[in-house]
Amino acid sequence: MALRSEDHVHQFEAHLNDVIPGHSIDCVILGYHDNELKVLLLRRKGQDLWSLPGGFIRKSEDLDTAATRILEERTGLGSIFLQQFYTFGGQDRRSVSSKSEIAMLNNMLKQYPFKEPDKVSAFLRDRFITTGYFALVQLNKVSPQPDFMSSQCEWKSLKALPELILDHSHILQKAIAHVQTQLNYLPIGLSLLSKKFTMQDLQNLYEVLLNRSLDRGNFQRKMLALNILKRHEKQLTGKAHKAPYLYSFDVPRYNEKLKKGIGFSF
Amino acid sequence: MALRSEDHVHQFEAHLNDVIPGHSIDCVILGYHDNELKVLLLRRKGQDLWSLPGGFIRKSEDLDTAATRILEERTGLGSIFLQQFYTFGGQDRRSVSSKSEIAMLNNMLKQYPFKEPDKVSAFLRDRFITTGYFALVQLNKVSPQPDFMSSQCEWKSLKALPELILDHSHILQKAIAHVQTQLNYLPIGLSLLSKKFTMQDLQNLYEVLLNRSLDRGNFQRKMLALNILKRHEKQLTGKAHKAPYLYSFDVPRYNEKLKKGIGFSF
Repeated sequence: MALRSEDHVHQFEAHLNDVIPGHSIDCVILGYHDNELKVLLLRRKGQDLWSLPGGFIRKSEDLDTAATRILEERTGLGSIFLQQFYTFGGQDRRSVSSKSEIAMLNNMLKQYPFKEPDKVSAFLRDRFITTGYFALVQLNKVSPQPDFMSSQCEWKSLKALPELILDHSHILQKAIAHVQTQLNYLPIGLSLLSKKFTMQDLQNLYEVLLNRSLDRGNFQRKMLALNILKRHEKQLTGKAHKAPYLYSFDVPRYNEKLKKGIGFSF
Repeated sequence: MALRSEDHVHQFEAHLNDVIPGHSIDCVILGYHDNELKVLLLRRKGQDLWSLPGGFIRKSEDLDTAATRILEERTGLGSIFLQQFYTFGGQDRRSVSSKSEIAMLNNMLKQYPFKEPDKVSAFLRDRFITTGYFALVQLNKVSPQPDFMSSQCEWKSLKALPELILDHSHILQKAIAHVQTQLNYLPIGLSLLSKKFTMQDLQNLYEVLLNRSLDRGNFQRKMLALNILKRHEKQLTGKAHKAPYLYSFDVPRYNEKLKKGIGFSF
């Protein structure tokens, strides 16, 4: 909790008085790059521990509104599609629980001009139920900024994750599992690929999400049968006849199909 | 809140001191009978309003444990498969909010020997975030009992629902929508049908869940291709040759398929 100024401390304390105790929100922001799924993580200042972007819910806020605000405040990402996926409520879910952690927290609190440090301590030491939200974003369109509690904000490959705080690793796994079972109801390709892509790009994405390889012929046949792709003419260059076709999504049709599930069986 | 005895009142008050404020659980228990989907509802004593079975989370309980306990306490249903589906957190989500409701609550509280009626009132008037759980059960296997707050506990057809309290109607719709998008990952037939059934029974169930008709030939072909059904020999009675085949599930195979999704496209 490296607070920058006295104002900041008072702002933070006022915020804690304004939010619901015992309930937080954590966001799993997924992107796709170089055939890898990546997640946006924040590194705690002064620690070699990373966390999902998260925060608290104002008394005057809906859960969804809070999730959007938290994501924007903590990463600079505005107006992206966030969807709730699960609420985590283990009885021992506390970010500060051991004697040494409590001592460390209270020590830190003394260094800052909090008006009621005991109250802040009690709030932060409480059991927290947390609701998980996830988003699928085009990685190259965002330039995330660390917030005041974090020294870094980075995309990390799911294949090489750093150590995460608390149960954040479990929350992340649950988000991935949710996306996997909801593939037919989520705008996977539209959210994660750039505007134009090859059939191979699309297949790679599904293979990464499903964590297994798919038959190329079957994939192409089924995907084309959905009637949600537009095929673009090849550019007239010397090598063009060897280049694969580029596709983009027919967005209205795609969205229409998603309503009932695109019915794609893998 | 028709409490039966002084003991009961003290027990209820002690319970409120033992649970997390501002967070509740509501259970959507779905059954299937006579080609209709039904939901288990409780009727509030002295009111013509119905509610989902719900309750609070003990400080010492995981969210999942609380859901199981609440369901058992409020309906008599033990050891059934409950799954979390969504958390509802509108900022105005309060069961007691208008001036007249608050007056009615405080009036009621005065009639019972609460030790700290103001505290009970504050607890019950708070904003509540609620986590929804759903279950699929064989309707004829359960004989639900109303609890002390309820005068009736009944299966109600989704086609003819009574008026529900708060946002319970929205919670119910959200549960149905969740089941619809998770059909390939839920033991639908195994949970809702009796042990033996005809292909038509199975198709009817899916048609009711999806709320649309399915092609008979396609359904049978795809269902058999899944290799999760056992066909039983017809009984040697006079009419047997006209009777449809009876099936049951090959449970280990069914469960194995469910892990990756049964890949059934409707």
